[in-house]
Amino acid sequence: MRKYKGYLLDLDGTVYKGGKPFPEAVEFVQTLNKLSIPYLFVTNNSTTSPGNVAARLTKLGIPCENSQVLTSSLAAASYIKERSVKQSAYIIGEEGLKEILEKHDIREEEEEPGFVVVGLDRSLTYKKLEKACLAIRAGAHFLSTNQDAVLPTEQGLSPGNGAISAAITTATGKNPVFIGKPESIMIEQAQKKINLEKEEIVLIGDNYDTDILAGIRAGVDTIHVNTGVTTTKEVSDKEIQPTYKISSLSEWLL
Amino acid sequence: MRKYKGYLLDLDGTVYKGGKPFPEAVEFVQTLNKLSIPYLFVTNNSTTSPGNVAARLTKLGIPCENSQVLTSSLAAASYIKERSVKQSAYIIGEEGLKEILEKHDIREEEEEPGFVVVGLDRSLTYKKLEKACLAIRAGAHFLSTNQDAVLPTEQGLSPGNGAISAAITTATGKNPVFIGKPESIMIEQAQKKINLEKEEIVLIGDNYDTDILAGIRAGVDTIHVNTGVTTTKEVSDKEIQPTYKISSLSEWLL
Repeated sequence: MRKYKGYLLDLDGTVYKGGKPFPEAVEFVQTLNKLSIPYLFVTNNSTTSPGNVAARLTKLGIPCENSQVLTSSLAAASYIKERSVKQSAYIIGEEGLKEILEKHDIREEEEEPGFVVVGLDRSLTYKKLEKACLAIRAGAHFLSTNQDAVLPTEQGLSPGNGAISAAITTATGKNPVFIGKPESIMIEQAQKKINLEKEEIVLIGDNYDTDILAGIRAGVDTIHVNTGVTTTKEVSDKEIQPTYKISSLSEWLL
Repeated sequence: MRKYKGYLLDLDGTVYKGGKPFPEAVEFVQTLNKLSIPYLFVTNNSTTSPGNVAARLTKLGIPCENSQVLTSSLAAASYIKERSVKQSAYIIGEEGLKEILEKHDIREEEEEPGFVVVGLDRSLTYKKLEKACLAIRAGAHFLSTNQDAVLPTEQGLSPGNGAISAAITTATGKNPVFIGKPESIMIEQAQKKINLEKEEIVLIGDNYDTDILAGIRAGVDTIHVNTGVTTTKEVSDKEIQPTYKISSLSEWLL
């Protein structure tokens, strides 16, 4: 068990589940906070703002400032800002995505935007898909906040943003740049934000196919917790292993 | 040049283009009609009814009864009727699809339908995608009228039914049974409908990747016309060749 200088934490399945926090996760983050060890929450969720996430965590007893949250929407905005491409976007997505792009002076444009940015949109229509496809065919760069195929809801597994993106890929023949986990983009941004070397930080998550893979691809150490999507047993069968496998955060000594 | 007892004809790019009929196609079908040689129009279009197609063709001077049109919607209805599965469907699609399923006593059902049938739907919403995915996960058979990735419109290339189907495939992990060309299902149904042996009929079309491939897969002879999507030159580069390649229907002697 190494000592790390900074921690990146997934949310759902790692810190809470179905809105209920894991007591050991609450204690873990409180300890990080007390010891002044930097940490960031890194989530594929594109529909809510860092402020909303921070408020929710604080309410659950998990200390968190707005600046300690990196959503896939915020990461998409940063990705766009770093590029010398027309700073406008046709957006498929909900308020969390639209707000953050606006806040970064990336204006909405339908006809000839620099980017098409696609996030989960529960108000998706054919017209929106059509506008996105036409803009991509006209030369817009195609970004997608994440490739999650499904969205777990009370009714079951609803279509995730990966499904919306697949429709656009089929109609345009273009694959998007995926911002969220398991791609490395968001982890690399988190590393810059936390201002530490890759070797000094570790990513904690429950989902092998998003969290752990993202860490592996970004070249960051990983800790798998057995409190969410992928079980420790399932992880043991994977070709590339996380750096550590633990049952829950109570096992990790700071 | 063989004499065939029956003809299957594609519509767009074969008989007309952009609403304008090819004079040689008008003459060709008029001759078929005069000689009492059976013929059927076979179209991937799922949004309109055989009656509407027949009325449009008649108006263009192309003799056509309702019973001489096989749309992918009608073929989907026949496919369902032939199966001993609950005769109900959750439908993503436009009036042409809904009408034809209703006419075949396949009732609309959201919760536990026997089938999910997906056709082009320019009023698609997230809710519709969600209902389709939940029904498929609950065990419904997944049918799609066709896999056309794009829909040519005045604005450019809009998303086709293949794009809508891809979203559902991504969210459910299930591939649909595609009814339309280039799959063989619709051609096999056309053969039964025209009531001739496979060896006695020929399929005429302009699009190698839909029309000609469908004929090849169904084991029916094919005639490629150079009046639409795929050029004769492009067809010449394909590994499996159509039975005949002609410039236009004026070259084919009945």
